[in-house]
Amino acid sequence: MSHCNDSPQRIMPPAADRALVDKLVLANRILYRQGVVDGFGHASVRHPESPSHFLLARNMAPGLVRREDIVTFELDGTALDAAGRRVYLERFIHGAIYRARPDVQAVVHSHSPSVIPFGVTGTSLQPVFHMSGFLAEGSALFEIRDVAGDTDMLISNETLGAALADALGLRSMVMMRGHGSTVVGSSVEQAVYRAVYAEVNAKLQMQARQLGDVTYLNASEAAKAATTNDTQLTRVWELWAREIGIVE
Amino acid sequence: MSHCNDSPQRIMPPAADRALVDKLVLANRILYRQGVVDGFGHASVRHPESPSHFLLARNMAPGLVRREDIVTFELDGTALDAAGRRVYLERFIHGAIYRARPDVQAVVHSHSPSVIPFGVTGTSLQPVFHMSGFLAEGSALFEIRDVAGDTDMLISNETLGAALADALGLRSMVMMRGHGSTVVGSSVEQAVYRAVYAEVNAKLQMQARQLGDVTYLNASEAAKAATTNDTQLTRVWELWAREIGIVE
Amino acid sequence: MSHCNDSPQRIMPPAADRALVDKLVLANRILYRQGVVDGFGHASVRHPESPSHFLLARNMAPGLVRREDIVTFELDGTALDAAGRRVYLERFIHGAIYRARPDVQAVVHSHSPSVIPFGVTGTSLQPVFHMSGFLAEGSALFEIRDVAGDTDMLISNETLGAALADALGLRSMVMMRGHGSTVVGSSVEQAVYRAVYAEVNAKLQMQARQLGDVTYLNASEAAKAATTNDTQLTRVWELWAREIGIVE
Amino acid sequence: MSHCNDSPQRIMPPAADRALVDKLVLANRILYRQGVVDGFGHASVRHPESPSHFLLARNMAPGLVRREDIVTFELDGTALDAAGRRVYLERFIHGAIYRARPDVQAVVHSHSPSVIPFGVTGTSLQPVFHMSGFLAEGSALFEIRDVAGDTDMLISNETLGAALADALGLRSMVMMRGHGSTVVGSSVEQAVYRAVYAEVNAKLQMQARQLGDVTYLNASEAAKAATTNDTQLTRVWELWAREIGIVE
Repeated sequence: MSHCNDSPQRIMPPAADRALVDKLVLANRILYRQGVVDGFGHASVRHPESPSHFLLARNMAPGLVRREDIVTFELDGTALDAAGRRVYLERFIHGAIYRARPDVQAVVHSHSPSVIPFGVTGTSLQPVFHMSGFLAEGSALFEIRDVAGDTDMLISNETLGAALADALGLRSMVMMRGHGSTVVGSSVEQAVYRAVYAEVNAKLQMQARQLGDVTYLNASEAAKAATTNDTQLTRVWELWAREIGIVE
Repeated sequence: MSHCNDSPQRIMPPAADRALVDKLVLANRILYRQGVVDGFGHASVRHPESPSHFLLARNMAPGLVRREDIVTFELDGTALDAAGRRVYLERFIHGAIYRARPDVQAVVHSHSPSVIPFGVTGTSLQPVFHMSGFLAEGSALFEIRDVAGDTDMLISNETLGAALADALGLRSMVMMRGHGSTVVGSSVEQAVYRAVYAEVNAKLQMQARQLGDVTYLNASEAAKAATTNDTQLTRVWELWAREIGIVE
Repeated sequence: MSHCNDSPQRIMPPAADRALVDKLVLANRILYRQGVVDGFGHASVRHPESPSHFLLARNMAPGLVRREDIVTFELDGTALDAAGRRVYLERFIHGAIYRARPDVQAVVHSHSPSVIPFGVTGTSLQPVFHMSGFLAEGSALFEIRDVAGDTDMLISNETLGAALADALGLRSMVMMRGHGSTVVGSSVEQAVYRAVYAEVNAKLQMQARQLGDVTYLNASEAAKAATTNDTQLTRVWELWAREIGIVE
Repeated sequence: MSHCNDSPQRIMPPAADRALVDKLVLANRILYRQGVVDGFGHASVRHPESPSHFLLARNMAPGLVRREDIVTFELDGTALDAAGRRVYLERFIHGAIYRARPDVQAVVHSHSPSVIPFGVTGTSLQPVFHMSGFLAEGSALFEIRDVAGDTDMLISNETLGAALADALGLRSMVMMRGHGSTVVGSSVEQAVYRAVYAEVNAKLQMQARQLGDVTYLNASEAAKAATTNDTQLTRVWELWAREIGIVE
């Protein structure tokens, strides 16, 4: 499951902007504090100077990630500066999505607890409130059996990654049956926001369904709400970052 | 969504009493700590010296509000001393309610999580226990589509504010479908108390409905309980304030 | 709702043992930390030297109770040393139960959240697991309308207190419809234990009912389990007390 | 319920490796912090130098366990170095399982809250997601009435222990109706991991069932996932241990 495959023939991109690396570290910590990830799950960002690379922590609990734990990867999952450290088996989630989606700049994979019941019952997440406008098209569903029969459920190679990206399509989120979910964003802040609010929306949707017939945001409401919310990302990021404190 | 519209021709009211400003800051912090608001939501108080003005924080997470973040507004949403800071798009919630309801001295808008499922299923909150006597008439419901078709769900102008205040009527609370809810009070303490206990009541009501037929407080019980509870506000405010600590 | 009625003609019992007063203070703090009480609710203990008196905090949030806040009462609710401080309107819960139940040495009244749905649907709590053996006879139910028509739901005089004690009978717990619940014990530790585990049992019972037909402890199992658990009170009290820290 | 039965004729095995004792202490603390145990429950490890012995804390809340609280037991429940301290009545759970299962090196008994509703409704836990691969065969169920009629629900002697081990069979987990559950592992880390994720799985399974028909991991997926997860134990143990801090 671990794979250290530094390849000296490949070229390292320029060093990523320090502020962006710190933001990625913060993202990992925020996702943990907000209950989206536990000891498992990970967040990445496309390399700002080189679109065919991305940054992702080494194989470790996201809540403990530090600046020195960030590793540079190629889209095929090859680590360029792992230096002997274990890397995530599921780095292929990130690489495949960056390859398929030029618009995506950040990816969050988690076992977000309230989302999992939706994945295992084939129930799509729909936007219950304006904060979930990004779920306008509903959450996609990836059933790994359709692609590879019986597996350990993990996206552990490029083929599975491509299949996942295919299921994701142009949507903001894909649920992975019997596993977890993955959200994408045009920035680290937006991907983290979406991961947090997908979890919130799942809780609300489960409760609302128990009360009665649910009026979801229609496509137009969701699109407008998403546009508005994207102007408020700084406000909530400031709160979340403040609660984490200093990044090392 | 942000709007800095200081207007030098308008007259600033006298400086608000420092203790009241501090109380408003505490209210924001308490609402966050009690889980009624997250990174979003806001609390205001009508200006004690000038009923056509109100105090509300600048556009920021309520959990981080400090004394210097409080801005003075006119009922039409015009900020008098924003000094370049962003203001809440939804300040119109507050202004419209103060205009429509001379009895209201404080307003809390939130995405109180347990309430949202009630709003999206058109299920009115009813008083499950004596702490929710203020829900005697049930929670009102505001469906924004009825007023403005497809929107981003936000009360972003005076027309929408007036429509929301109209839906609220003389009740203590209005649920905003696909968005959140707003409660009103005759004091900051009462508005915060109502926001906290509306959330509690929503949880209880959801659980009670799953167990069987629910006996709610009747109109008389609710009215009497509300009167009694209003004499206990100091006791719980003391606890909540103590847990926040010092206001800066 | 507040009532300071020190009566100089009545005799104060000897000062209560300091360790017991500290234990009562701890009980209040533990109940708050364990989520059984919030800003409301209270715990009392029968005076160790004088059975016709009991100790109860002044009217305040239980989470803030300190040694100096403990007041001595007669069973009819008369405070002997309130010294101008407000007392709980519902002190009559405690007095009436001590009068009706010579075996009871401690009483806890709360708005324990998971229990309230049972009270408002007339669903008796039953022992789901061995920790709730004390619920062998089920939780009693007090419907205040049967006694006093429409009220503010509070036990605010001796008549209501006696009615509540009558509903409690010889059981360990009585649910108060539209209000909360009250548990009794032969010691402070036992009453606190019962309050905590009634809340736990309520949660479990609600979840179990959603899964299928529930096998509860039968009367014999419950009685035996209760006897065994009573020998383990010290162990969990030690944990709870340790988490509170020093009593002032 | 307490039983101090040091027996001078029995031979103490060599002192257990200090690192393993510390790991067992950490296990207790982690289980408490993760909400699997409360004031009750316990974790043990088979003695590394002597398979017919095991290590288990004295009778106390697991969240307070320290190095000096660890006691050495024989499989029949005899404490060899209790030195007057009370021992757990239910040490027989551990001894009986070690006797019946040579592959098991660690045992965790708890009242894991989300699992209890499954036990009292006879609903087997099934693997909802890849983290619960160890539930491939489902959770076993132990009904104590079948063995001993009406009891206090506790495994308080060797006969009951043997019956429990019999119900457990070769599975990873056994639910104990009206009581709690017990999980086993080939290491302390694996047993703790399984206890934590059994609780998580139970929550997910309850929620999923409310949404619709659930697709669980099939036997092959579960086996593969379990194998993969066992390579990730260090990663999550590091996080959990880091959050506990220093072991005394």
